[in-house]
Amino acid sequence: EGDVDAGKQKSAVCAACHGQNGVAQIPTYPNLAGQNEQYLVMAMKAYKGGQRQGGQAAIMQGQAAALTDQDIANLAAYYASLPAKGK
Amino acid sequence: EGDVDAGKQKSAVCAACHGQNGVAQIPTYPNLAGQNEQYLVMAMKAYKGGQRQGGQAAIMQGQAAALTDQDIANLAAYYASLPAKGK
Repeated sequence: EGDVDAGKQKSAVCAACHGQNGVAQIPTYPNLAGQNEQYLVMAMKAYKGGQRQGGQAAIMQGQAAALTDQDIANLAAYYASLPAKGK
Repeated sequence: EGDVDAGKQKSAVCAACHGQNGVAQIPTYPNLAGQNEQYLVMAMKAYKGGQRQGGQAAIMQGQAAALTDQDIANLAAYYASLPAKGK
């Protein structure tokens, strides 16, 4: 299970692209706030495992490579806990 | 540019996994409502181009294979237009 607070700590580096509140200011990046926790875990693991390529995947592969499974669980719990907000 | 109404028509098949209102009932599938339009286009094209593998990517590859670029633009416009809602 992920720890929301630990995820919040870890999310500092993510905020650059995904926004302080998990709503990306850059239109080609996904909003993460309120996303499904298990989906977020799967997506991060897919980047970490090199199962997502092309386009911006390279950026995320670099980011995910540095994450432990616990980091991934914590980040997923944190972003899933944020209120979803579209544009 | 995508056409929201045409996207809504096309989204009938997507609703099975992504929910009637773009909020997935199944926790391993992503919510699409209020997601960034350009990100949605890139994600669908990544599935269509086989740049996303593993896990559930196979399901989405099958779905995306049947979509034209205009379908993709319309679906992205539609889902981006929906009010984002977390759990």
